[in-house]
Amino acid sequence: MADPRVVIVGATGAVGKVLLQVLEERDFPMQSLRLCASPRSQGKKVLFRGKEIVIEEANAKLFSECDIAFVAAGGSTSRALDPIAAANGCTVVDKSSAWRMDPTVPLVVPEINGADVEWHRGIVSVPNCSTTQMVMALWPLHRVNPIKRVVVDTYQAVSGTGAAAVDELEEQTRQIVEGRPLTREVYPHQIAFNALPQVETFTENGYTTEEMKIFRETRKIFHDESIKVSATAVRVPVTVSHSEALHVEFERPMPVDEARRLLSAFPGVTVVDDPASSAYPLALDAAGKDDVFVGRIRQDISAPNSLAMWVVSDNLRKGAATNGVQIAEELLKRKALLRHRATAAG
Amino acid sequence: MADPRVVIVGATGAVGKVLLQVLEERDFPMQSLRLCASPRSQGKKVLFRGKEIVIEEANAKLFSECDIAFVAAGGSTSRALDPIAAANGCTVVDKSSAWRMDPTVPLVVPEINGADVEWHRGIVSVPNCSTTQMVMALWPLHRVNPIKRVVVDTYQAVSGTGAAAVDELEEQTRQIVEGRPLTREVYPHQIAFNALPQVETFTENGYTTEEMKIFRETRKIFHDESIKVSATAVRVPVTVSHSEALHVEFERPMPVDEARRLLSAFPGVTVVDDPASSAYPLALDAAGKDDVFVGRIRQDISAPNSLAMWVVSDNLRKGAATNGVQIAEELLKRKALLRHRATAAG
Repeated sequence: MADPRVVIVGATGAVGKVLLQVLEERDFPMQSLRLCASPRSQGKKVLFRGKEIVIEEANAKLFSECDIAFVAAGGSTSRALDPIAAANGCTVVDKSSAWRMDPTVPLVVPEINGADVEWHRGIVSVPNCSTTQMVMALWPLHRVNPIKRVVVDTYQAVSGTGAAAVDELEEQTRQIVEGRPLTREVYPHQIAFNALPQVETFTENGYTTEEMKIFRETRKIFHDESIKVSATAVRVPVTVSHSEALHVEFERPMPVDEARRLLSAFPGVTVVDDPASSAYPLALDAAGKDDVFVGRIRQDISAPNSLAMWVVSDNLRKGAATNGVQIAEELLKRKALLRHRATAAG
Repeated sequence: MADPRVVIVGATGAVGKVLLQVLEERDFPMQSLRLCASPRSQGKKVLFRGKEIVIEEANAKLFSECDIAFVAAGGSTSRALDPIAAANGCTVVDKSSAWRMDPTVPLVVPEINGADVEWHRGIVSVPNCSTTQMVMALWPLHRVNPIKRVVVDTYQAVSGTGAAAVDELEEQTRQIVEGRPLTREVYPHQIAFNALPQVETFTENGYTTEEMKIFRETRKIFHDESIKVSATAVRVPVTVSHSEALHVEFERPMPVDEARRLLSAFPGVTVVDDPASSAYPLALDAAGKDDVFVGRIRQDISAPNSLAMWVVSDNLRKGAATNGVQIAEELLKRKALLRHRATAAG
């Protein structure tokens, strides 16, 4: 099969911009690259590998001329466009939450359940950013000593909300420094110099949709409906990288040394854990990197067979763009693109 | 007994300044007020109730002329001065961690264990700020349905470190906004736009001293050596007010409505819990207030008989100054000052 023809929908958004970088860095094989965005960006030009690409409208004809679509433009766009793409033979790697819990759509972190891409019907979902970095830190341990319960409290960067939220944090910070009146559009409360215990919207059980995603997506990715996860998702005035405090209960004892060894050996995970020299994962250090960083690994003193740890990752990279490109690589490796299947069948 | 003669040691520090405000606001009965600070502040003048007070050196003679000393100048100052104050008949309300776990020193949150002030031998300790707001949110529930385990992850303001840390956050923020090179003195890493999973120093078990304080002080305040607490203490770019995500396991079921009712009825606690209108406790809202604010109260979906909640309080007020003044009020009410005892005995 020739190199795939690729399209990015949402190319000018926070994730779209990083997708372009990651495709270039990983030298993703492409016959062609097309870019789509909302009407107000159409006609604009974006530079990729020194070449200008004009932003187009995403439609059936365009999808019929592509093999892989990265769609990162919000849930409603995904719900509208992904089925059109798939119906036109273009396999979708979708960043939104639209299809994640759909039983016909694989939800994939390639290091964990890459094989799940094989049963897709046109759409593969990229998990929520908070979920991905957590499961990357849990899976290497879970597969040797099953995890029963996870408590996770997050410290989430504003870039997870999108480019407008990054602007809002910058603008509010500037307004405070310069003593000007504060403006607010994206978040329900001031985010600068504050901590907002609301990420997305509230559900009936008092958890937010973000918190319930962490619970449900973990089960789907692990193929384990018994694992229990309680999250409090909090937005903090950080631009890039989510941090997470984890408290994890295992079936059997899990020595700290073994956990460090298992995590260090796992692809995509880097252990940074030397408290004596104040070495632990930090949002600022993780920004721009693809790995999930784990540190502060210690026996949890409040429960048997439990560990506490601190997990940090760039929410736009492993939390979104990098994981998406890795899914596309997995689709290529396993010859699992729609059009490849059609060719193979024909 | 006449109104007490009061001295504040550390009057120019972050907590000392708030102590002055709280004494004035609560109209704390005082025959006289003297202020002490480090040598570089001695001789300077501070305004209180429209009157200038000259900063003095703290010494045995001064303590012998006072009945209550509020000491908020760090652990080494407390270790050096508190015994001198007590030996000279001056009862110390100490904000530092120096004596908190000393079995001869009561550790008091007046709403919870105010009676403990009665057995002091000259020093009463104010708990760690992170502990105080947590136990205020737990006690109203614990006393009707014993708590077995607490997982708490904190979002702590820089003012907990002191005035220099507030300056560092402001300065780093300004440097970033103005595109200047970054400076750093107080924290081991940049605090602006970051989240530091280190508050104080590390102990042998991988927890920090701050995290272990939350564990041990809770047991001492509750008179309950069975309760288990696992904390991850994190510094965030917030100036005033600590936030905490709590996951609490009870002996028996604890309905959300009952928890709300018990918390609302408890003095010093305000429930802010209307997710539908994005109403929950926020650091910015709690700053400058004396109450502990509790919200996001929900059944924890990961364990039986468990609640999750979000607790916010001004770390300089209920976390330090206000609780200290309340202890002094308790000492007066119970006629438990050293000099009162001496008079009563004589």
